[in-house]
Amino acid sequence: MSRPIVLITDFGLGDFYAGVVRAVLAAAAPASPVVDLTHDIPAHDIDRCSFILSLAVDDLPPDAVVVAVVDPGVGGPRRALIVEAGTRLVVGPDNGFLSDLIVGGAETRFFAIDESAVARGTGRAARGATFHGRDVFAPVGAALARGATPTGFGTEVDAVTLLRDVPSVSIDGSRLSGSGRHVDTFGNILTDIPRAAIERVFPGGACRVTVGGLDAGRLRRTYGDAAPGEMVVLLNSWDRLEAAVNGSRAADRFAGLPPRRIRFEVGAP
Amino acid sequence: MSRPIVLITDFGLGDFYAGVVRAVLAAAAPASPVVDLTHDIPAHDIDRCSFILSLAVDDLPPDAVVVAVVDPGVGGPRRALIVEAGTRLVVGPDNGFLSDLIVGGAETRFFAIDESAVARGTGRAARGATFHGRDVFAPVGAALARGATPTGFGTEVDAVTLLRDVPSVSIDGSRLSGSGRHVDTFGNILTDIPRAAIERVFPGGACRVTVGGLDAGRLRRTYGDAAPGEMVVLLNSWDRLEAAVNGSRAADRFAGLPPRRIRFEVGAP
Amino acid sequence: MSRPIVLITDFGLGDFYAGVVRAVLAAAAPASPVVDLTHDIPAHDIDRCSFILSLAVDDLPPDAVVVAVVDPGVGGPRRALIVEAGTRLVVGPDNGFLSDLIVGGAETRFFAIDESAVARGTGRAARGATFHGRDVFAPVGAALARGATPTGFGTEVDAVTLLRDVPSVSIDGSRLSGSGRHVDTFGNILTDIPRAAIERVFPGGACRVTVGGLDAGRLRRTYGDAAPGEMVVLLNSWDRLEAAVNGSRAADRFAGLPPRRIRFEVGAP
Repeated sequence: MSRPIVLITDFGLGDFYAGVVRAVLAAAAPASPVVDLTHDIPAHDIDRCSFILSLAVDDLPPDAVVVAVVDPGVGGPRRALIVEAGTRLVVGPDNGFLSDLIVGGAETRFFAIDESAVARGTGRAARGATFHGRDVFAPVGAALARGATPTGFGTEVDAVTLLRDVPSVSIDGSRLSGSGRHVDTFGNILTDIPRAAIERVFPGGACRVTVGGLDAGRLRRTYGDAAPGEMVVLLNSWDRLEAAVNGSRAADRFAGLPPRRIRFEVGAP
Repeated sequence: MSRPIVLITDFGLGDFYAGVVRAVLAAAAPASPVVDLTHDIPAHDIDRCSFILSLAVDDLPPDAVVVAVVDPGVGGPRRALIVEAGTRLVVGPDNGFLSDLIVGGAETRFFAIDESAVARGTGRAARGATFHGRDVFAPVGAALARGATPTGFGTEVDAVTLLRDVPSVSIDGSRLSGSGRHVDTFGNILTDIPRAAIERVFPGGACRVTVGGLDAGRLRRTYGDAAPGEMVVLLNSWDRLEAAVNGSRAADRFAGLPPRRIRFEVGAP
Repeated sequence: MSRPIVLITDFGLGDFYAGVVRAVLAAAAPASPVVDLTHDIPAHDIDRCSFILSLAVDDLPPDAVVVAVVDPGVGGPRRALIVEAGTRLVVGPDNGFLSDLIVGGAETRFFAIDESAVARGTGRAARGATFHGRDVFAPVGAALARGATPTGFGTEVDAVTLLRDVPSVSIDGSRLSGSGRHVDTFGNILTDIPRAAIERVFPGGACRVTVGGLDAGRLRRTYGDAAPGEMVVLLNSWDRLEAAVNGSRAADRFAGLPPRRIRFEVGAP
């Protein structure tokens, strides 16, 4: 049985690059289901990729092979990695996209891919310096899905690249703060502030939250627990703090600001 | 053999929520093909979901399990449903998204999902109040695809929520009218006015149509049967009245108007 | 074993038409993996479809059946084709979308589809004149994926429709010129100018390139081989000339110009 392959990239769906990666996988691992987690990470946004992957990882099949390609340094000196993360495998460039996962405490081992081993192990030679999603990460992912081991493609390494300010959370006495990390399709603002941190400082979650300086009140259970047009904060389905506006788009209150620039402050009620 | 699973949601493809649902299905029903019917129902637009599903349903595999998630009331008191619609099964929130299908005369039986049965039947407990696509509808859909029966998840109910003004069609003597329900990717305006209604009032389809007050002439066979830039009305591939402009976008003649606000009047030729 | 099916269309992903085609394939060829190469060819842009398909074709599984639907003439007199292109099969309208592939020298045989054979061979009658993706191309593609032969659906023909100015390349003494054919999701400008043509005129690739009148210097190896904000030209992962700006979008330097209007001039260094 071939392991399922999960794709997370910044290729967009308005182009054919994600399709080419899918085509390579269909040829090299035809028995593997392919799951498009998302191809709409903003172009070159490694921070976003790291955050989304850390949220979604527990929803992925336990035997998944993740192919993650947000790769502004393609063709340059950055290494290519295979990562064992618990029972899952992740393939991608060594540029920090695993930071939230690693800092979050996932059990990991790292292997630096040796490009000459890729050609030997996959029967494909890279056909250029600009599309390692097609020429390196997909073929290696397909080989792993069919049962190859990471050591067949590289050697174990101790350290990998980490992003700064991951997670965004800081605690100062009885105040806890952090920032948005993603604005979703409904305009909701997702943070990396976990339930556990809030409940450690505010037992039972009894707190009051401001979002970008605007009062958002106490924690609610779901979006509809606010009047239409009212801002609401809640612990979402990944147990992270999130801001929304019932029936509207919370991010529109901060038009133009990237999620990292929207500060969340959690204080006493 | 595991039944195919069809997804229709408003999650968008610019985000990772559709991907998470696909990942849950890949883990829970790995032998089921997953068909993305669309994830681009406009956010919270139950009327649109109802219309699109009623058009596409006959194109779906006869043994399909449809997972439909346009769910502005997630986490609130709205019920979760399993619906038998002929040989197909549909899972989704009880908010009216089945209205066109039901009013159109589909043979249906309804089952209200008991959330405690979901945890028992799928081995998954809901991990929040905000993402029942992941925590309820996908796991139940996967279980049904693998052979579970609706009665394993809930009890039969007689009535479900219906939208108003579905379908939009009304007949007044020798005039028939209705409205747009969807603007497609080519700018064509799709209505819910069926061929049968037109031919009952106008034998042989001999009629003249106005669209939003503009004369669109008689019925044609295909888009190219008009001069470039000319508006054309036809009975489309779902036997519903549709307006287009040859080589251009009909909806641009009504810029800013939602499809429901574009009136179609069918009169004598 | 059922052959994989590859889709390339202009249906967009913001609508349900691609989903309907996938649903038809899931019913008619349930054992075939379906690969969405892209659904975001600009509406009715046959030139773009031709170029993208010619780039991606070598990345497709060798036994792929390609269903290509960019079909502004649907329902009109244009023929429907099955094409043998090496070991692959391609199904689509006879409107020129195969031009780059054919002019590039692919070994091809053409079969004009007989619509009455479609109903006989697929068990489906067309249900309208406006959606041959659903009613002709997908059912025929599914039948071919399951082992049917082109001659079962039509008769061999010698000539098919070709686009003009494909490829865009011309050579005038020691100058070589051509044009953009596609702007990708990163704003890079892809041309149809092949490495072989450049190296024939400029041995070793020693040349200097202007893009839309702007000097882009000599050929580099990858995007990072330029200063941030600097324009760079390279031979990309399909061995075609491409322009990019390191860390930014090259196409923004020519805002509003379609790719065909951006001229590439290759001269002595």
